[in-house]
Amino acid sequence: MSIRRTLLCLALAGASRGHAEDLLPSWRETPSKKVITAFVETVTGKDGPGYVPPSERIAVFDNDGTLWSEQPMYFQAFFIFDRIKALAPQHPEWKKQEPFASVLRGDLKGALAGGEKALLELVMASHAGMDSGEFEKLVTEWIATAKHPQTGRLLTEMVYQPMLELLAYLRANGFKTYLVSGGGIEFMRPWAERVYGVPPEQVIGSSIQTQYAVRDGKPLLLRLPKLHFVDDKAGKPVAIQRHIGRRPIAAFGNSDGDFEMLEWTTSGPGPRLGVIVHHNDAEREYAYDRKSHVGKLDKGLDAAPVRGWTVVSMKGDWTAVFPDLKR
Amino acid sequence: MSIRRTLLCLALAGASRGHAEDLLPSWRETPSKKVITAFVETVTGKDGPGYVPPSERIAVFDNDGTLWSEQPMYFQAFFIFDRIKALAPQHPEWKKQEPFASVLRGDLKGALAGGEKALLELVMASHAGMDSGEFEKLVTEWIATAKHPQTGRLLTEMVYQPMLELLAYLRANGFKTYLVSGGGIEFMRPWAERVYGVPPEQVIGSSIQTQYAVRDGKPLLLRLPKLHFVDDKAGKPVAIQRHIGRRPIAAFGNSDGDFEMLEWTTSGPGPRLGVIVHHNDAEREYAYDRKSHVGKLDKGLDAAPVRGWTVVSMKGDWTAVFPDLKR
Repeated sequence: MSIRRTLLCLALAGASRGHAEDLLPSWRETPSKKVITAFVETVTGKDGPGYVPPSERIAVFDNDGTLWSEQPMYFQAFFIFDRIKALAPQHPEWKKQEPFASVLRGDLKGALAGGEKALLELVMASHAGMDSGEFEKLVTEWIATAKHPQTGRLLTEMVYQPMLELLAYLRANGFKTYLVSGGGIEFMRPWAERVYGVPPEQVIGSSIQTQYAVRDGKPLLLRLPKLHFVDDKAGKPVAIQRHIGRRPIAAFGNSDGDFEMLEWTTSGPGPRLGVIVHHNDAEREYAYDRKSHVGKLDKGLDAAPVRGWTVVSMKGDWTAVFPDLKR
Repeated sequence: MSIRRTLLCLALAGASRGHAEDLLPSWRETPSKKVITAFVETVTGKDGPGYVPPSERIAVFDNDGTLWSEQPMYFQAFFIFDRIKALAPQHPEWKKQEPFASVLRGDLKGALAGGEKALLELVMASHAGMDSGEFEKLVTEWIATAKHPQTGRLLTEMVYQPMLELLAYLRANGFKTYLVSGGGIEFMRPWAERVYGVPPEQVIGSSIQTQYAVRDGKPLLLRLPKLHFVDDKAGKPVAIQRHIGRRPIAAFGNSDGDFEMLEWTTSGPGPRLGVIVHHNDAEREYAYDRKSHVGKLDKGLDAAPVRGWTVVSMKGDWTAVFPDLKR
């Protein structure tokens, strides 16, 4: 056996010992944790009736409100506003043109007063008009320093420590973990691997249209100001089938936008896990559900007990919400 | 170390010895093979300047004419015709209605005389109107027995032995292998893992629209008679970015429908591999290129020497075309 393979075997032996450790240290020993670990033990139990081969261990995670915060608004909106401000010198007309004028005055409520049409205009102005490589660079540079307006943390530090542990725990048990988010697919890909351990090919999201073109001998994927797909509500199962081609066995969400994804996932045969993260911790994060304009959770709260979905209480089930900052 | 892990280590030790073996036994020792193996050695050579980490070792393969035959017509057309015949009793009007009437008379040339419009009608009649699970079952059952009209082999035995070896060789070297085909994504997924070792989530293809619906309490993905995406020519790089989110480093095609995929793949920085399978073996398979109505290869033949793409001669580079049948 080569040295490299011997080292690999030692690493595997270490991993073997690791299975006895608690991979979910930020989860209290509550029923929520027990449901999750019992499910994982069932599907990995080789001789049990609930065994699922690794190739079918697909877990899907919503992002906004499930893996990172979404208050006071979706973080991608901060990116949009920062891009609009950066582009303003090239667009003097925006000073008098809504929704841009409101953004430039810092009046975010006014900017969104125009509803979906205004939002789409802002998305296209900030997300289209460049090629895919340029957009990736813009997001990468922006996310490296973008901070939360209330906590002052980097946005990538507004992720939930217990959910990071859960992602790693599932992967350690042979799961393939996917993001299935209403957020932009190309907005998440540049940092999802670093922050969540989820590679670009396992990120699913909303998208605008792209076009292949060769300019000065250089092939490019141009980002067009046209909506391609909204990965929300009934769009989530459609996108899951399109990208993955099999039904997940575990789904994690937090809002009614995840309802159909949970429904689709948990309606299949064999062991299934549906989890809703409930934002009930105003002290450590935020508290909102049935009446929130962002991340509204109403239908899901009613359906959970009927459908056997687990409602995770941020307040009761988690010992910590955000990762410790070692800076 | 557990018994399971010890066994895994023994298996790895075996794999280690395996690397010294020739994983491409059906490839003659010609320049084509040397280009391929030199590329793989370069990107896996940890201390070399061309090293590519495993996460970026993405290889994309066209299917029709690259991994299996496409003569006398695309194999998916056989599925379409068989479906039309099976559905005919429910559609008495088809007897007098083109392109269906021609299909039912066995006049395939007549059926395709109506061009793209006629083809689309046939696709929708055979691919839409059921849910995704039913369609998967239809394809799975059909492909289990569908045979080639000229060789009598199962269609899944009309795959190229050297390409099967190449897929396995790349995976053994840390590559993720994808299908990127003009064929239907849900037509390929049911058998791609068994035949090529490519799981559903690594299959990219053309698609029709689907809709999520709940009927009698059961969630379904309904297949609608509307085109969603044509994964051919400039559509291939678009689909690659959408599904994978990074540029492949190796691409394998056979026709001008693969031109943009090869161009996109081989235009990135670092080591790149572009390969075209040239059908020049009338004795063992088929011989066609610049003037073929199926799998036309014209632009690609001219571009290959200029762009450094390798043209594989089926006749000269392969000791065998199809797998031996051990029946």
